[in-house]
Amino acid sequence: MCNKRASQYHKVEIPPPQPFLKSLKNTLNEILFADDPFRKIRNESKTSKKIELGLRHVFPILEWARGYSLGYLKSDVISGITIASLAIPQGISYAQLANLPPILGLYSSLVPPLVYATMGSSRDLAVGTVAVASLLTGAMLGKEVNPVQNPKLYLHLAFTATFFAGLMQTCLGLLRLGFVVEILSHAAIVGFMGGAATVVCLQQLKGLLGLIHFTHSTDIVSVLRSIFSQSHMWKWESGLLGCCFLIFLLTTKYISKKRPKLFWISAMSPLVSVIFGSLFMYFLHDHFHGIPYIGELKKGINPPSITHLVFTSPYVTLALKIGIITGVIALAEGIAVGRSFAMYKNYNIDGNKEMIAFGVMNILGSFSSCYLTTGPFSRSAVNYNAGCKTALSNVVMAVAVAVTLLFLTPLFFYTPLVVLSSIIITAMLGLVDYEAALHLWRLDKFDFFVCLSAYLGVVFGTIEIGLILSVGISVMRLVLFVGRPKIYVMGNIQNTEIYRNIEHYPQATTLSCLLILHIDGPIYFANSSYLRDRIGRWIDDEEDKLRTSGETSLQYIVLDMSAVGNIDTSGISMLEELIKILGRRELKLVVANPGAEVMKKLSKSNFIESIGKERIYLTVAEAVTACNFMLHTAKPDSTVPEFNNV
Amino acid sequence: MCNKRASQYHKVEIPPPQPFLKSLKNTLNEILFADDPFRKIRNESKTSKKIELGLRHVFPILEWARGYSLGYLKSDVISGITIASLAIPQGISYAQLANLPPILGLYSSLVPPLVYATMGSSRDLAVGTVAVASLLTGAMLGKEVNPVQNPKLYLHLAFTATFFAGLMQTCLGLLRLGFVVEILSHAAIVGFMGGAATVVCLQQLKGLLGLIHFTHSTDIVSVLRSIFSQSHMWKWESGLLGCCFLIFLLTTKYISKKRPKLFWISAMSPLVSVIFGSLFMYFLHDHFHGIPYIGELKKGINPPSITHLVFTSPYVTLALKIGIITGVIALAEGIAVGRSFAMYKNYNIDGNKEMIAFGVMNILGSFSSCYLTTGPFSRSAVNYNAGCKTALSNVVMAVAVAVTLLFLTPLFFYTPLVVLSSIIITAMLGLVDYEAALHLWRLDKFDFFVCLSAYLGVVFGTIEIGLILSVGISVMRLVLFVGRPKIYVMGNIQNTEIYRNIEHYPQATTLSCLLILHIDGPIYFANSSYLRDRIGRWIDDEEDKLRTSGETSLQYIVLDMSAVGNIDTSGISMLEELIKILGRRELKLVVANPGAEVMKKLSKSNFIESIGKERIYLTVAEAVTACNFMLHTAKPDSTVPEFNNV
Repeated sequence: MCNKRASQYHKVEIPPPQPFLKSLKNTLNEILFADDPFRKIRNESKTSKKIELGLRHVFPILEWARGYSLGYLKSDVISGITIASLAIPQGISYAQLANLPPILGLYSSLVPPLVYATMGSSRDLAVGTVAVASLLTGAMLGKEVNPVQNPKLYLHLAFTATFFAGLMQTCLGLLRLGFVVEILSHAAIVGFMGGAATVVCLQQLKGLLGLIHFTHSTDIVSVLRSIFSQSHMWKWESGLLGCCFLIFLLTTKYISKKRPKLFWISAMSPLVSVIFGSLFMYFLHDHFHGIPYIGELKKGINPPSITHLVFTSPYVTLALKIGIITGVIALAEGIAVGRSFAMYKNYNIDGNKEMIAFGVMNILGSFSSCYLTTGPFSRSAVNYNAGCKTALSNVVMAVAVAVTLLFLTPLFFYTPLVVLSSIIITAMLGLVDYEAALHLWRLDKFDFFVCLSAYLGVVFGTIEIGLILSVGISVMRLVLFVGRPKIYVMGNIQNTEIYRNIEHYPQATTLSCLLILHIDGPIYFANSSYLRDRIGRWIDDEEDKLRTSGETSLQYIVLDMSAVGNIDTSGISMLEELIKILGRRELKLVVANPGAEVMKKLSKSNFIESIGKERIYLTVAEAVTACNFMLHTAKPDSTVPEFNNV
Repeated sequence: MCNKRASQYHKVEIPPPQPFLKSLKNTLNEILFADDPFRKIRNESKTSKKIELGLRHVFPILEWARGYSLGYLKSDVISGITIASLAIPQGISYAQLANLPPILGLYSSLVPPLVYATMGSSRDLAVGTVAVASLLTGAMLGKEVNPVQNPKLYLHLAFTATFFAGLMQTCLGLLRLGFVVEILSHAAIVGFMGGAATVVCLQQLKGLLGLIHFTHSTDIVSVLRSIFSQSHMWKWESGLLGCCFLIFLLTTKYISKKRPKLFWISAMSPLVSVIFGSLFMYFLHDHFHGIPYIGELKKGINPPSITHLVFTSPYVTLALKIGIITGVIALAEGIAVGRSFAMYKNYNIDGNKEMIAFGVMNILGSFSSCYLTTGPFSRSAVNYNAGCKTALSNVVMAVAVAVTLLFLTPLFFYTPLVVLSSIIITAMLGLVDYEAALHLWRLDKFDFFVCLSAYLGVVFGTIEIGLILSVGISVMRLVLFVGRPKIYVMGNIQNTEIYRNIEHYPQATTLSCLLILHIDGPIYFANSSYLRDRIGRWIDDEEDKLRTSGETSLQYIVLDMSAVGNIDTSGISMLEELIKILGRRELKLVVANPGAEVMKKLSKSNFIESIGKERIYLTVAEAVTACNFMLHTAKPDSTVPEFNNV
């Protein structure tokens, strides 16, 4: 134990009081503008330059368009056409998943990508509809409005939900509340996406087996019961054709996965399947009555739908609810995808700015017959692999879709539905990320538990139950972290002034008359009773040990507050109670290294007076030295150590 | 900067892996058995002794009955009679508040105190009904069942709600989930109680003004509108008499507050008011028709009610809901009261054991015509001041109440209702604790905000809204603490190896090629994006500063993880991303003092390989020394420092 500097301690400063409004401003600033997005604009002195930077901030197209080259154009055209070939069949399939007219899938690949190209900050994101949000729209809306009996209302409500989703996304972005999306942890997303993919695959059994009547529920029990209860209705032609396409699609996917350079094989395979399937049905539809096909698709680009939005009760609340839930899920997926590709290419993405881009794109989409879009992973991955350089690839895709809408829709007349089901299943199987789940199990059991509950909630309950479960358990984990902070005994690492957890560093030595406890978290109402009880138990344990070994009794309890980030009024009361409880047991409390925030609160209460100013030290080592010093002088309380101003 | 020990660093240990089940057991043990309640029983070797200790654990009466003396008995009888004199009028008043027959207030002071005396561990708690839970029962039940039109169902549902409250309390205690109650922070309770007291006082205006028709809502707007819309119905006799009693009661309360020795003056004053009021009405009821009085009270002790419990839908869910809400509030009050008096008298209370006692007392209460009871503050304070020694004072009170029920009920025939209103108002005014609210404002603005929202929620909304608001905001605070941890720059305190926050210790000096950042909280999904952004901003700030001053550029980022209590998979991904981001900026990451839990997780992922084992140090000082050493040698990456095993 180093005794070099007894009676020469550093003072723990009390931070100067801050006016309430200033500290409130600082706090809000930290919560909402952590990344300081306007740094560049603020540092600029000229007003004209400021406006230019501001415009470029809102419309990143102004940024990248300036340095645009012919080489970029070539890459963007190639990748744009590639993603269009994926977007057309996928769009039609996902619209079917949402019980919406197939043409809506094409509409949704026209307007939103154009908006995103001007406002989005990702260079790799390819905009389009996604399976999970489509299924969710279908399931939630279908519960209230029958899409077959009342197709018009159903369609209009889908537009309204998209409008609300866009509105919410824009608001979240403008209010810089992007962190709301962070409540979906990575583990929750893995489980939720896996569950949703499983559910979507199960739904496709309807198409694969050529069934007409099907359950509206999405849980595995209802779906399997519905399938096996009508096994006499299964159509073998449909099933056989579906299996052929499924094998073809999975094989191309496998090839592309093994050799990333051959990415175009899997990117093109859906379109190839559609072409072959359509040709097959065109020539043989008289022979195979059991295989349903798409039928007529209306020619022409998006009709306006702004007048179709429904703002009258009772449907407006339904649309609002669907909009908020699907909007948040779409945001979480889009931002995560944008971020991961930005990581590969070394550029940065501002989550709040992206939210505004997504929001505006969905609002304008809802005005032009589109339903909810975001940045789907599969399409963006193809875009990235195809070598896109800027968001212009989205424009190219939109043009290709527009050409299709204007001239090529009759070609899809004979496309068999079973091909669409195979395309969806292939896309979904990639989302069941069991490797990620295994990784979670190895690293963090609790995260695995969150992931599993989300998965099981979606598969055996509904998509919403899975979502609520995973968010609930994630938040519970945060509350539990604060509610049950670790407290451990510290010991001295020999020949140093370092004190560490004796369980982590078993070589660390303790002193018999001192108990050094480290609190690993804030002291809040949710944990103050626990901390009081747990400290009492540590003291009991220590005294039992000393009694059996016959050593000198305990005299001082040193509380290391290095990791106590904050304290509230319940926490301060607990500390005051602790002094009294320790006093009854003839023990003295000593505090080491309270942080700025804690020191501020302690000085405002009368805790510092009740513990005594000389009982607060800057480090554990100094606290120990001082306690030793006081132990070895006759009247410990009368010996106030001298402070050495730092 | 001390360079004494370059190339001689302490190793950061990786804790040995623990089997999953063992670590799960440890975690659950910490969460549920923090205070190690069975320590004594476990340490005992003989089985007979173990059983004896176990029985004493469940029935504390066996503990204190052994050392009982005549002196104790004298004190307990005095305090028991004192609280009985308060319990009788208060019981009748509170039953009226719950729209229940007044006799129920007396029944509820008979059975529950007897149960508590055998099972409760507090020596000062006086059991009885409380105003807030009574009002809440009345408001919630009254919304669904009319107490005037359907008094029988109303009564039976009140018993059922009490049964469910007791059942929940027992279960919480048995499952050791007492910490559920901790979600009500002190600040929330202050605001909620103040609001509830305000609402209860407002309700008493009905009695004071002698009104017959009254609103069922409890918010201030509805109540005031109801009162002033029927100002022609006000009865001046009733109001005048009420004001007289109010002045009398408040005066006696003031005297007792000024001179605690005269506690009996305020304790007796309700009974005195009842006696005087009854005498007044007995002689003058022909002259004052405007003053309603209680009327007949049934003679005899509690009739059984076990067969009256309602377990059929649709009422069972209502009773369950009321039971849970009122049960939690009653628990929070009872345990807080028990704890504060235990603090004064230097003994300990086990929250989980108390819950079981409260639960059993309410279950047995619901079988014997009692409604929800707990340990009210006012009655317990009188008990404490009257000098009670053990829970026997509750038995004495119960006996006094039994005598009243058997022989004295006719005496209450002429008791004016306005006296009861005055008694309630006097009791409630003490609960509006504006001094505590001011204290919160001074110490912690956020706690004040919680308190204020609870108050306003109760007064302007409903009691439930106030409760949900305060719990919601309290939990949000915990989530926000984890979601937005503080990160600050650390500097060296001269001539030491201590590093501290440079805002807290402005004298601390920084090095130009090093940025030391301290993270003040766990790294979880909810904050990993924020931390990544915020660290980036600190680096931007530092580089801007160095650029303007023309100093050498930044080379190392030292992350002090002393206060990072835990990390999840999202956090680990963030750290891995951070290494890449820093790499792009030609910066190197160095980690100081990761704790046991963090080190375990980091070693399971491949983070340690990607950062390099030689980049993790035990202290910030060693990390800085090592960085300095590497900076001053030609090829920093090739120089692996030697480790010195601790």
